[in-house]
Amino acid sequence: MNDFTLHLTTKIVFGRDAESKIGEEAARYGKKVLLHYGGGSIKRSGLYDSVKDSLAKSGLEVFELAGVKPNPRLSLVREGIELCRKEGIDLILAVGGGSVIDSAKAIGIGVPAKCDVWDFYLGKACPEKMMPVGVVLTIPAAGSECSNGSVITNEDGDYKRAVDNQIMRPSFAIMNPERTYTLPPYQTACGITDMMAHIMERYFTNVDHVDLTDRLCEATLRTIINNAPIVLRDPENYDARAEIMWSGTIAHNGLLDTGRIGDWGSHNIEHEISGIYDVAHGAGLAVVFPAWMKYVYHHDVARFVQFAVRVFDVDLAFGRPEEIAEEGIRRLEQFFTSIGMPITLPQLGVDDSRLGEMADKALVGCEYQGHFVPLYRDDVYNILKIAMGK
Amino acid sequence: MNDFTLHLTTKIVFGRDAESKIGEEAARYGKKVLLHYGGGSIKRSGLYDSVKDSLAKSGLEVFELAGVKPNPRLSLVREGIELCRKEGIDLILAVGGGSVIDSAKAIGIGVPAKCDVWDFYLGKACPEKMMPVGVVLTIPAAGSECSNGSVITNEDGDYKRAVDNQIMRPSFAIMNPERTYTLPPYQTACGITDMMAHIMERYFTNVDHVDLTDRLCEATLRTIINNAPIVLRDPENYDARAEIMWSGTIAHNGLLDTGRIGDWGSHNIEHEISGIYDVAHGAGLAVVFPAWMKYVYHHDVARFVQFAVRVFDVDLAFGRPEEIAEEGIRRLEQFFTSIGMPITLPQLGVDDSRLGEMADKALVGCEYQGHFVPLYRDDVYNILKIAMGK
Repeated sequence: MNDFTLHLTTKIVFGRDAESKIGEEAARYGKKVLLHYGGGSIKRSGLYDSVKDSLAKSGLEVFELAGVKPNPRLSLVREGIELCRKEGIDLILAVGGGSVIDSAKAIGIGVPAKCDVWDFYLGKACPEKMMPVGVVLTIPAAGSECSNGSVITNEDGDYKRAVDNQIMRPSFAIMNPERTYTLPPYQTACGITDMMAHIMERYFTNVDHVDLTDRLCEATLRTIINNAPIVLRDPENYDARAEIMWSGTIAHNGLLDTGRIGDWGSHNIEHEISGIYDVAHGAGLAVVFPAWMKYVYHHDVARFVQFAVRVFDVDLAFGRPEEIAEEGIRRLEQFFTSIGMPITLPQLGVDDSRLGEMADKALVGCEYQGHFVPLYRDDVYNILKIAMGK
Repeated sequence: MNDFTLHLTTKIVFGRDAESKIGEEAARYGKKVLLHYGGGSIKRSGLYDSVKDSLAKSGLEVFELAGVKPNPRLSLVREGIELCRKEGIDLILAVGGGSVIDSAKAIGIGVPAKCDVWDFYLGKACPEKMMPVGVVLTIPAAGSECSNGSVITNEDGDYKRAVDNQIMRPSFAIMNPERTYTLPPYQTACGITDMMAHIMERYFTNVDHVDLTDRLCEATLRTIINNAPIVLRDPENYDARAEIMWSGTIAHNGLLDTGRIGDWGSHNIEHEISGIYDVAHGAGLAVVFPAWMKYVYHHDVARFVQFAVRVFDVDLAFGRPEEIAEEGIRRLEQFFTSIGMPITLPQLGVDDSRLGEMADKALVGCEYQGHFVPLYRDDVYNILKIAMGK
């Protein structure tokens, strides 16, 4: 087990009654709130009114910045930074899913910054301070409500880049599973895939003796796998929605990688796909992750056997270790298929015309991708080829 | 799943290099530090010098209050409160295990209090503020390094009482598994039992649909069960010590009871045993917990079957649900025996002469004990009778 520091500074308010606390939590940070969100879905669901009511009751002045898209854009971040500076905003309240939260975090680090905010994403500078960011979560997926990271797309060149820093954890997160009832099945499944990918990125590590976090990862994966079909066939099942929502946070708040080094190759490869094609991040991960697994499992067959046995109940009598490992990957693909996810690039609507370009882009600014097995340009290309299917 | 709020405010610094950060972390809270500890063990191990060095390097003025005993005493807490007020202490640094940390927390809530500190433990008042408390952990067991609770014994009547409050989480915890190498086997096993009991208290709940936290509980229990024999036969095995140490924190920081209501009957019964007999808390729990299980398992056989199957691998073909449940309890007893713990009161050196007195005391100030099954005075007495063994 490696040395680690863990400081989970986000206050979680979870449950049916959570939204009644929005104003109270927001008021701790000042008087002026920037409500940051996507489009009309929070208005249709009534959440928008509920949030505004709660903020008004606490006597807060509300500004708005809507229009966050999936794969949130740098241009809107810049607009938010300007608005916060001009109006002297005290708190950014992100109402939505990972894209809205990531956009809010980007604004939050941009406002006090002396450099351009994109420099943080390029690794040219390190953010030292973030304005307070609160969250009202509507899509369990990215885990950004509690995580230290943010992913932004620079439209000027289709680059999608991440920045991770302890100061980037939201101050509070309001989580009501009922708000996820209206998520369409495809988006529900994308979220489920994203949170599973967050856990699997951490699971495949070269650090030895990580027994507790291995088992916590497996426990969270099994919970998601168990509850996914329930929320898909019964979208208003409170308890199953709650299990999925809380699993999404645990998957990515940092607990599951204490003492270990995750891989993150699949995420970075997927960023190149959704950076160009604007597909849902979760759907892209359902394609990339099994392809990555097939390409790298020989590196540590025992770990893939453990995954197959403990997560997917593959019997040890199934065959040679390699066969057990392959069966684990197959069952992961079957699971993704069962929840309506693609498992090949063509199913995602991506042909092979830009594989080389994506492989090139994945290596911009770094020597290799991934930690479990370092992936160079040709490795990324080969994984994308595998992802084309037969 | 129930609604919940979770705010894990303690910063964890974990690993071989953690102690080098003591001064840096302590200096965030001011200039004057009260070093609070037990006896000579931290001097013999060199930890005392290492802590003083690190504090000195950060330019901090150090005061000392030693003499914390297992089942920490109210009289020393009062002495600490007086000292902190007189010297204007900024941070209490607890160096030791749960007793030292609980004592530090008691001092921490006592210093700013207008009432007598014992009133908090009697439930007559609610603490609103705690002085900053930092921790250098030497005994993985109580989980107090990250928890919101403190247990103190009032020698004037042998009462042992707990107070839990969100404000009572330490500001930081320094955790170096190497510092646990010299723990004697019995104390190591007591700690292991204590952390398992923390998880099991949470596990046995009447709240339905707690899939994720069930599985996280099982994962942590299995990690402890897997690593316990390793640390007992190879006390300087860093990784196994690290798994046990980190498990002890996870067991009790609040994550594992998000959305559920724990029982805590066994803990409260045990407090009456160790309040009178001054036995190790963990050893007392190894006696009480199986006795409690035998007394209550009919209340929810399915939950005890899940425990038996998922934690102790009892095969579903073992027999009727009741038999599977009983086998789970038997395997827990076998595990406790295997790590050198008593499983009956006589093995603990306690005879049946004061069972009635303990049962009476357990009910002082409350109508019943426990939430899974409410235990009245005669229930507690019956559980203590079962704990006498045959």
